[in-house]
Amino acid sequence: MRILVTGGAGFVGSHLVDILVEDGNSVVVYDNLSSGKPHFLQHHLDQGSPVEIVKADLLDLDTLKENMPGIDIVFHLAANPDIRLGTEVTDTDLKQGTIATYNVLEAMRLAGTKKIAFASSSVVYGEASVMPTPEDYGPLFPISLYGASKLAGEGLISAWVGTFSLQAWIFRFANVVGERGTHGVIFDFIHKLKNDPTRLEVLGDGNQAKSYIEVRDCARSMYHLVCTTDAAINYYNLGSGDVCSVRRIAEIVVEESGLPEVSIEYTGGSRGWAGDVPQASLAVDRMKDSGITPTFDSEGSIRHTARALIEEIGLHD
Amino acid sequence: MRILVTGGAGFVGSHLVDILVEDGNSVVVYDNLSSGKPHFLQHHLDQGSPVEIVKADLLDLDTLKENMPGIDIVFHLAANPDIRLGTEVTDTDLKQGTIATYNVLEAMRLAGTKKIAFASSSVVYGEASVMPTPEDYGPLFPISLYGASKLAGEGLISAWVGTFSLQAWIFRFANVVGERGTHGVIFDFIHKLKNDPTRLEVLGDGNQAKSYIEVRDCARSMYHLVCTTDAAINYYNLGSGDVCSVRRIAEIVVEESGLPEVSIEYTGGSRGWAGDVPQASLAVDRMKDSGITPTFDSEGSIRHTARALIEEIGLHD
Repeated sequence: MRILVTGGAGFVGSHLVDILVEDGNSVVVYDNLSSGKPHFLQHHLDQGSPVEIVKADLLDLDTLKENMPGIDIVFHLAANPDIRLGTEVTDTDLKQGTIATYNVLEAMRLAGTKKIAFASSSVVYGEASVMPTPEDYGPLFPISLYGASKLAGEGLISAWVGTFSLQAWIFRFANVVGERGTHGVIFDFIHKLKNDPTRLEVLGDGNQAKSYIEVRDCARSMYHLVCTTDAAINYYNLGSGDVCSVRRIAEIVVEESGLPEVSIEYTGGSRGWAGDVPQASLAVDRMKDSGITPTFDSEGSIRHTARALIEEIGLHD
Repeated sequence: MRILVTGGAGFVGSHLVDILVEDGNSVVVYDNLSSGKPHFLQHHLDQGSPVEIVKADLLDLDTLKENMPGIDIVFHLAANPDIRLGTEVTDTDLKQGTIATYNVLEAMRLAGTKKIAFASSSVVYGEASVMPTPEDYGPLFPISLYGASKLAGEGLISAWVGTFSLQAWIFRFANVVGERGTHGVIFDFIHKLKNDPTRLEVLGDGNQAKSYIEVRDCARSMYHLVCTTDAAINYYNLGSGDVCSVRRIAEIVVEESGLPEVSIEYTGGSRGWAGDVPQASLAVDRMKDSGITPTFDSEGSIRHTARALIEEIGLHD
């Protein structure tokens, strides 16, 4: 297949490209490199593999239209990766999330591309009253602007399925962690320890607990489900089936850091910031029933990530 | 209260303004008059009542910001009223729905206005597998671009509640019918009979069946719920609790027309157009439990509307 991956130079995108190439697909990476990094794809370019990189923004509809003809399926992963940004800048998720997704769908409609896989998020559930939260949970009242853009993206996709006969895979990700991470709590903790190896400030009381998934488990699950399911709209939570607290993450990062004496300090309060969902547990029965077994549970994925990012970031330099 | 009503010169908006004024509020109508009509509000202007009309578009964020200070609550009703348009023009609902709602919320945030009531729609449920469909139904996969914009609007509002401490009322309307209607199946049927009094073409097989609500019942319900409920997000289906088929609507319109011989002809197929939900039945237990009793059931609201619109449109001129 010829596959266009938006955000293909990013954290999840670059791992997905690895899997797509491994299975013999040709890949067009469409990325503005605002958070994606070309060196995440360097091993493909070096080996002359069938990966082409288009450095462009999804808001540039003309360039997007130019690159769509001949594409069999779009994996739409590009988005602002910083959920917390919405508390300060309110139009980033609207533009880089909602309007970007509209542009992807419009370019697909015009080019006759019929399949889209979308990286949505468990944050569409907001503060769910049912946990673990299944895919059919309602109402969907996200509490972050990022979450609003993911819900808007899902709705646009389902509308294009209903109106223009697209086929869609919607994946609601748990917190994705792993190598090449550029954001998130583990990344933040390591940078804090790099600045001050004696103390680690944790936002909130540390009791926030969420589901995690390791990035290669996530990318592999997406590709598996796209290849094995065939409804008009296929929608799945992707997670490892358990949760891990922020307190435990802080402990693991400190353990893996090898730093002798770190004081972990909590700012207090039940959530990290306005729009942060303090408790999130994803039901992943449908994912597991499809034949996927994640390699890591939440705590395992965090320890694996802490090791990898301490190496990447260079804590001890 | 000082209340801003977007789309306040429109079909539902103008009836809501009647109710708000009757209860002693002062009202700023914000309307671009693309489908709203100043004469729907003429009776207020004549009597010197506290209604001010701002003719401006919601995409004009500067004008919106100028009019927001001092507003206690926004009733956000403005939207493209023509669901079917999305099959041909794909950016109208994005702009007049999603981006317009973002602008309303942003102007509120900047002005410190904390309450919003939103006219959402039962089309956010898409082709629901549970009928009558309750408010907690999921997943929300609308099949029209209009539905996508309503779902996006709900998500933006819940994000502003979660991030900037707004309070919200989300109303998912059944098909709203009544006096001053400017769109919809009854309106279309009367115009078709005006063009040709011998035959009435019906899109689909006529078995499409949906919930209806009379416009004053709808406006009264919104105001009642805003005055009597106080959660962070209050969300209600608004409908009359039953359904009426398109076939029956055609028969009622023909009966009320008084035309002696009309041949009703069906184009066939289960839905009127791509993106049309053929079967929709709204659960309205929560609305009724709040103390609201609609004046009309679905068929009654349709007969009432047929009479009123035949008079307004002037079928026999």
